[in-house]
Amino acid sequence: MSAPAPIEKVSIIVSKGSLDGIYPGLIMANGARAEGIEANMFFTFFGMDAIHKKRHEHIKVSTVGNPGLHMATWVGGFPGVSSMVTHMMEKQMEELDIPPIPEFIEMIADTGAGLYACKASADLFKMAKEDFIDQVQDIITVGEFYEKAAGGQIIFT
Amino acid sequence: MSAPAPIEKVSIIVSKGSLDGIYPGLIMANGARAEGIEANMFFTFFGMDAIHKKRHEHIKVSTVGNPGLHMATWVGGFPGVSSMVTHMMEKQMEELDIPPIPEFIEMIADTGAGLYACKASADLFKMAKEDFIDQVQDIITVGEFYEKAAGGQIIFT
Amino acid sequence: MSAPAPIEKVSIIVSKGSLDGIYPGLIMANGARAEGIEANMFFTFFGMDAIHKKRHEHIKVSTVGNPGLHMATWVGGFPGVSSMVTHMMEKQMEELDIPPIPEFIEMIADTGAGLYACKASADLFKMAKEDFIDQVQDIITVGEFYEKAAGGQIIFT
Repeated sequence: MSAPAPIEKVSIIVSKGSLDGIYPGLIMANGARAEGIEANMFFTFFGMDAIHKKRHEHIKVSTVGNPGLHMATWVGGFPGVSSMVTHMMEKQMEELDIPPIPEFIEMIADTGAGLYACKASADLFKMAKEDFIDQVQDIITVGEFYEKAAGGQIIFT
Repeated sequence: MSAPAPIEKVSIIVSKGSLDGIYPGLIMANGARAEGIEANMFFTFFGMDAIHKKRHEHIKVSTVGNPGLHMATWVGGFPGVSSMVTHMMEKQMEELDIPPIPEFIEMIADTGAGLYACKASADLFKMAKEDFIDQVQDIITVGEFYEKAAGGQIIFT
Repeated sequence: MSAPAPIEKVSIIVSKGSLDGIYPGLIMANGARAEGIEANMFFTFFGMDAIHKKRHEHIKVSTVGNPGLHMATWVGGFPGVSSMVTHMMEKQMEELDIPPIPEFIEMIADTGAGLYACKASADLFKMAKEDFIDQVQDIITVGEFYEKAAGGQIIFT
């Protein structure tokens, strides 16, 4: 049996607005570009915060509804806990040279990855091109997304 | 280099039971059909609420564990907040002609998309074919899902 | 039109640390192996709890931020509620012969599926090979993941 053809393209959808919801997509896009794989990122629903000028520096870890943190459920909802956990995780990421979300996205765009916002979501949250960081190339429809994704793998995160 | 072959089929899995967890899958299925792409939807775990006769009209936005909403974490857990946020988002969707979940799913089924429930999940939550809306064609196993998904893209939402 | 070629391989990413976040990936991997489909599982972020020696027996249902449970939002955050719901769901799973997470993962590994941890996440949470169950074959980079995923479907859960 011959080896399967390598992956040539990934189309990564970022749909969540929490730090732990956004990083996996960024890490997968960055890892793809490092291997010479074409990568496009599509930001939809709350995931659009990652490319929103006023919001992308204020993204937090989801501390409630996240048993993975191993905190008592009721602790996660206390005022300040989400900010504290976010601060701790950001510090650990800094040690590992994983950049904060705004710098990371800029870095990924610099590798030649495409960044796009979802039209339906932008309309829903009344966001326009000027609300997004300059690296966002366009606001596109689902149909345009499928066109761009042809010949690759769709990864919904 | 020639253009890659267009996407011919998408198999969209809906696994979450919140409004913000269900809509992305519906929008992607609807967008696929609008482009002439074959689309099948598979509802599993809490995502089965979207096709459950008694539940599909009562689906809410997840307001806790969702930093994307930019509410103080502890506010999201107050009685009534989830309903209020849901109501606000539904109003915005109405303005954009995005239908409520029950109508949207009916509309997607009318375009020729297939709707299926996951057997393991239906067994787990003790649901049977008659609990689901009429548009659901069958309750199928994971193996049958993979058969139907052949030749297309699997999108887990 | 001839039937599309069957799916030959699935690469399932488990990124969440809750019972309801982990099971779908396990069920899809197990279902793939039952059909003779090659399956690899990659555990990243909080999903690594599923293969963590000290944590994989203590995984809970996310009861807040999960409107799918149909509990009043504020109830989900009470001490003990998450454990109670988890216990109830585990009992139902037992009736259906769905094994608890540790046994299920062992069973899936026994079918020949590969288990891998994500390097970036392991570094972030300061976990090493000895923290994971013996069935985990390796800690790999995103680039190595894409290599292993070639010729199949990537499913991010």
